[in-house]
Amino acid sequence: MTNRTAAPVTVIGLGLMGRALATAFLKAGHPTTVWNRSSSRATELVAEGARSAPSVGAALEASPLTVLCVTDYRAVRELFDASEAELAGTTLLNLTSGDSTQARETARWAEQHGARYLDGAIMAVPPVVGTADATILLSGPHSDFGTHRTTVEALGTVTHLGEDHGLAALYDVAGLAMMWSVLNAWLQGTAMLRTAGVDAATYAQFARRMAVGVADWLPGYAEQIDRGSFPAEVAALETDARAMAHLIEESEALGVNAELPKLFKAMADRAIAAGHGGEQYPVLIEEFSKP
Amino acid sequence: MTNRTAAPVTVIGLGLMGRALATAFLKAGHPTTVWNRSSSRATELVAEGARSAPSVGAALEASPLTVLCVTDYRAVRELFDASEAELAGTTLLNLTSGDSTQARETARWAEQHGARYLDGAIMAVPPVVGTADATILLSGPHSDFGTHRTTVEALGTVTHLGEDHGLAALYDVAGLAMMWSVLNAWLQGTAMLRTAGVDAATYAQFARRMAVGVADWLPGYAEQIDRGSFPAEVAALETDARAMAHLIEESEALGVNAELPKLFKAMADRAIAAGHGGEQYPVLIEEFSKP
Ligand SMILES: NC(=O)c1ccc[n+]([C@@H]2O[C@H](COP(=O)([O-])OP(=O)(O)OC[C@H]3O[C@@H](n4cnc5c(N)ncnc54)[C@H](OP(=O)(O)O)[C@@H]3O)[C@@H](O)[C@H]2O)c1
Ligand SMILES: NC(=O)c1ccc[n+]([C@@H]2O[C@H](COP(=O)([O-])OP(=O)(O)OC[C@H]3O[C@@H](n4cnc5c(N)ncnc54)[C@H](OP(=O)(O)O)[C@@H]3O)[C@@H](O)[C@H]2O)c1
Repeated sequence: MTNRTAAPVTVIGLGLMGRALATAFLKAGHPTTVWNRSSSRATELVAEGARSAPSVGAALEASPLTVLCVTDYRAVRELFDASEAELAGTTLLNLTSGDSTQARETARWAEQHGARYLDGAIMAVPPVVGTADATILLSGPHSDFGTHRTTVEALGTVTHLGEDHGLAALYDVAGLAMMWSVLNAWLQGTAMLRTAGVDAATYAQFARRMAVGVADWLPGYAEQIDRGSFPAEVAALETDARAMAHLIEESEALGVNAELPKLFKAMADRAIAAGHGGEQYPVLIEEFSKP
Repeated sequence: MTNRTAAPVTVIGLGLMGRALATAFLKAGHPTTVWNRSSSRATELVAEGARSAPSVGAALEASPLTVLCVTDYRAVRELFDASEAELAGTTLLNLTSGDSTQARETARWAEQHGARYLDGAIMAVPPVVGTADATILLSGPHSDFGTHRTTVEALGTVTHLGEDHGLAALYDVAGLAMMWSVLNAWLQGTAMLRTAGVDAATYAQFARRMAVGVADWLPGYAEQIDRGSFPAEVAALETDARAMAHLIEESEALGVNAELPKLFKAMADRAIAAGHGGEQYPVLIEEFSKP
């Protein structure tokens, strides 16, 4: 069902994710045009109300905004190279996963072809797309974001990170690093507590509260990094390093994996060797910033 | 100021933390007796209303509960070996940091001497002790916890984890592992985003939301571990491993440290090699449970 106020939108790439994007646009009432290399993938969406474009060029012409969602950036360039599509005057929003260099290069390529360009990352799985739980990160010109914001909001909770086209890719992987870290720390603790007969569900409640508590310190700790000064207001790095040694010993004594604890300590030890033992944990930013 | 309903309590060990414990008991109105190897450390507390005991034995006799807080478990044993104190009939709460084996051994030693014994861990720095923000973890017999609960609650937010005396030490280091993981992931992201001119304060807000969001998944993920079945309801481990490869490449391209991303991938790759690539992330518990 389309509605008069919702802007037309095109989706190119109808894999698992592209189909979820098109469905979300249709549900929000946007007149939705779709194109996929293997055209059979459009069939279901057409039944839901989408219009299937006969060519990439026709797909671009159908809407002021075209969302791209294919395997990778190479596929993005291949699909345009294979078509005679006129890019000038259109706006592309590329939600294909890639790195910040690819995003910036693709932005330059689009500009050279006279197209406006936004880059983005989807921090969600297909079934969540179209709900507030889907985080959509965008980067690129503010004005283009402003023009298409309400359209993109059909996909989830949208955050515009800034004009640098590389930002969405950077926040995306940085956010995933946080995800794996929280999960790994939880698994480390779960493995340790299971040796004492504590089930995963019981420990998860404690781990959850701990993660949330520490997350709340981050804005305060960030001030130390931005000021470049790390007084030990709460605890000195040396104290952390001693407790890390206990974590390693305990993990080894219990017969669980100790690689993560050892990496904690190796990084802290390097900062201590560099003379930062009396400073606070965020001083480790210097270690994290080195290759 | 003491009050009629607050039970007497003794604190042995008046270092930075022991003094904070004694001060919190005094503030909550508990008649508080203190003892320290170097007796001069009691002076300030006596001025605040504490009674200084002339010997370990006299300190134990003064209160139904004696809190121990010295450097390590070896110091606990040394201080009792050096005294002629009668342990029978008393209750010890040992808040000295140590590992689960030390806690269990000390519980057996106390029982052999006819004392009741609770083990504990303080997840707080001294200035926070006596406020709700100080997490006090206890383990040992339920009945002893019940008897002394209101006294211990003068120190902070108290959680009794179970009868196994080793639990407080285990939850303590597992909780610290979560702390360092959240901080390290945040530092990794901060280092990456700084290359694009994003300041730490800006990225911290995003990192905080991400950590909290993932923390909320833990109880659900824990069910998979407790059932021992890991269907890829949200994403398969193989998908994570591909994104981990992007994180490594991006970190290296930006010239920031890639050790943490490489550890993520090494563990995931091992689970994939063991045939778990189509299952969900918590299947990694098998890797974390191996030495
Ligand atoms: N699925 C998720 O959970 C998820 C989550 C976040 C982000 N993403 C990202 O979203 C993007 C798409 O993922 P997906 O799950 O939809 O993948 P998918 O199901 O494998 O679909 C891949 C799509 O790319 C198209 N394609 C590949 N090479 C092409 C080329 N050279 N020219 C034209 N089209 C080409 C395919 O067309 P054909 O049908 O013709 O092969 C298909 O439409 C990826 O970058 C992925 O990382 C996915
Ligand atoms: N400070 C924190 O932020 C913090 C946080 C959580 C947990 N903890 C734990 O709390 C415990 C105490 O820490 P702290 O910061 O108070 O340390 P501290 O300031 O170094 O004090 C150590 C205390 O232990 C006593 N001691 C050491 N060896 C002894 C022995 N053989 N016999 C008798 N007494 C002995 C010392 O007595 P003397 O005065 O005679 O030397 C002193 O009272 C440690 O296990 C620590 O890990 C501390």
